[in-house]
Amino acid sequence: MPDDFERMWTDLAPVGRSTASGGYFRQPFTTPERELSAWFVEQCTARGLRVESDDFGNVVGWWDTGSGPAVLTGSHLDSVLDGGAYDGPLGVVSALAAVDLMRARGVVPTRPVGVSVFVEEEGSRFGLACLGSRLATGVLDWDAARVLTDRDGVALGDVVAGGSSSLLASVGTFVELHVEQGRDLVDRGAAVGVASEIWPHGRYRFDFTGAANHAGTTRMEDREDPMLTYAMTVLAANKQARLAGQRATFGRVAVEPNGTNAVPSSVTAWLDARCSTDDALAELVSVISAQASDRASRDGTSLVVTAESVSSSVAFDPALAAAVAADHEGGDWPVIPTQAGHDAGILSAAGIPTAMLFVRNPTGISHSPLEQASIPDCLVGVSALADTLERLTA
Amino acid sequence: MPDDFERMWTDLAPVGRSTASGGYFRQPFTTPERELSAWFVEQCTARGLRVESDDFGNVVGWWDTGSGPAVLTGSHLDSVLDGGAYDGPLGVVSALAAVDLMRARGVVPTRPVGVSVFVEEEGSRFGLACLGSRLATGVLDWDAARVLTDRDGVALGDVVAGGSSSLLASVGTFVELHVEQGRDLVDRGAAVGVASEIWPHGRYRFDFTGAANHAGTTRMEDREDPMLTYAMTVLAANKQARLAGQRATFGRVAVEPNGTNAVPSSVTAWLDARCSTDDALAELVSVISAQASDRASRDGTSLVVTAESVSSSVAFDPALAAAVAADHEGGDWPVIPTQAGHDAGILSAAGIPTAMLFVRNPTGISHSPLEQASIPDCLVGVSALADTLERLTA
Repeated sequence: MPDDFERMWTDLAPVGRSTASGGYFRQPFTTPERELSAWFVEQCTARGLRVESDDFGNVVGWWDTGSGPAVLTGSHLDSVLDGGAYDGPLGVVSALAAVDLMRARGVVPTRPVGVSVFVEEEGSRFGLACLGSRLATGVLDWDAARVLTDRDGVALGDVVAGGSSSLLASVGTFVELHVEQGRDLVDRGAAVGVASEIWPHGRYRFDFTGAANHAGTTRMEDREDPMLTYAMTVLAANKQARLAGQRATFGRVAVEPNGTNAVPSSVTAWLDARCSTDDALAELVSVISAQASDRASRDGTSLVVTAESVSSSVAFDPALAAAVAADHEGGDWPVIPTQAGHDAGILSAAGIPTAMLFVRNPTGISHSPLEQASIPDCLVGVSALADTLERLTA
Repeated sequence: MPDDFERMWTDLAPVGRSTASGGYFRQPFTTPERELSAWFVEQCTARGLRVESDDFGNVVGWWDTGSGPAVLTGSHLDSVLDGGAYDGPLGVVSALAAVDLMRARGVVPTRPVGVSVFVEEEGSRFGLACLGSRLATGVLDWDAARVLTDRDGVALGDVVAGGSSSLLASVGTFVELHVEQGRDLVDRGAAVGVASEIWPHGRYRFDFTGAANHAGTTRMEDREDPMLTYAMTVLAANKQARLAGQRATFGRVAVEPNGTNAVPSSVTAWLDARCSTDDALAELVSVISAQASDRASRDGTSLVVTAESVSSSVAFDPALAAAVAADHEGGDWPVIPTQAGHDAGILSAAGIPTAMLFVRNPTGISHSPLEQASIPDCLVGVSALADTLERLTA
């Protein structure tokens, strides 16, 4: 008898959790994340799902039933640094529970159903979000990916074999269930919703270079201090995003030599920008970069901006979204946009008809230990996912 | 036959040097710094100097000659992160070379002469500058020091035994030779100079606390982003220091969780401030803190400012400085102030008559791989130090 939703949820709760913050550190190919991956294989095996892995660490548990193009559902098990419990694992646990629920209902799908886990969705270790799904879809070449390094200089090619993937070869439709990362469903009073689109978004590395010097003996006017250029850029990014009604964040920074009594030689910082259209994203990054360069010339510092990843707008298959959302007891599920990237966006862009389900998050907060979803809402999510899989495999 | 200045200098050059930056990483009680300490003991032994250590890692090589209060000279062997070659080691190597020069001249001091190395002068590991001299003078209690931790959470008490020190019991005068950390001597066309005073200075930890959240899905107006408060504080510190003709620097920062796609939960940053008077220092830190708090209230963040170390103005013994500087071939040596802290400041404040010699630095840059001193200037420094020790032990 496979574990039910609450039992699975309880089992995962302590893995990679910081007792200090209550947040999760489940970086790809580290012990906690590998423990979760092993747990997933056990759960698949307990359900008689056939486990298939690719050379990148992505895994699918197949319910070999019916014939024709498969319906795949799942999410990821990695977290951001100090992240919440739900972002990723909720979609995986709900997928397993939805299979259980369909079987309990006596449903026999006419098409194969797969439960998937893609690695490094957050990009918290190797810097590129949706790494596993980019590799599985072939959007990203292994030769380009293998040289990506983490903060300690360890290359992706040193932690995973790499090669090829045929996990998606038979997939006709993908469905990802995910905790909502805003408060749209709270405002609408709905436990679940369906995604309409993902905003375009990108990560841009800003390398500010100055000249290290003594913090005491160097006159203010003799400095070439990249921290000043960085600070002005942080404020400019915030102001421009507000003015444009878009999103811009500097949440990560690395300073050299990072000593209290030394003017820094360099500051490296990462801009996360998200906009309602591709043009708005290009414009926002352009304005922020221009203001930063202007300030750099006044500070005697230099600036190089590198786009590390840029994802265009993803509109999910509108007919599929409508079909998933319509005709439910209690009315249609709301269809809402999201500003967060997902593996579903990669698969959709790669031509696989894709839908996303969101589960209400009372705090609206995510990428934080404060991220939440109630157990009753989670169980509504499981039921909604089972309903959706039934419709798609009827 | 002991090594001469250039041989000693060449021997030290590779220890703890980064091949990437050319800078030095000689943090206290790490392998490179312990190697330097062992090298120092060897050099003392080769000269027949009696080696005496205390429980904190400070070491003196004694030339047991004459009687009465001793004259101590030396500096430190640790560096800032990615520092220069001269800050510290120049004073130690010059002290050993000055002993050699005095002996070559046939000088027989009427008082004992010691060559000293104090640990953790830069505060680059445990955060408190002049740690070794503070402990040796008794200004800092071991009970307060033992719990200081480095960035990895390792406590000082775990890397050194601690206890007591009698190294300074017989010391009547201290002289520290140091590379200049500005361009005063360049402007004056002098190879060496004498210190008049050390500006008051302090290190203040700014803990900015906000709320972690998703960088994409969180509306700009819903954020409590401590990076914004930090950025404004960096610019305010720079502006206020310029206006006041003083120095203020944010060179070190730590962000949690420091992920590209997360609004930070907290930013911790260290302000290094130096002023011409104690009152000016208090005023500068007060104005910066007030502007930061004001901004925090607008950002929905909070701020706690903690003074980690504050050193009052140190005026070196004026009669001693005058006696050291006067009546040289080619005229008096210039007497100049410095904005950098030194063990000499700690010993002076503890009541030991103290003088400092500076050696010209053509770049004026320090705490950087670009820090410099020419070999001819260094040899003038050795000669000046030998002259000074001769005068003080005549």
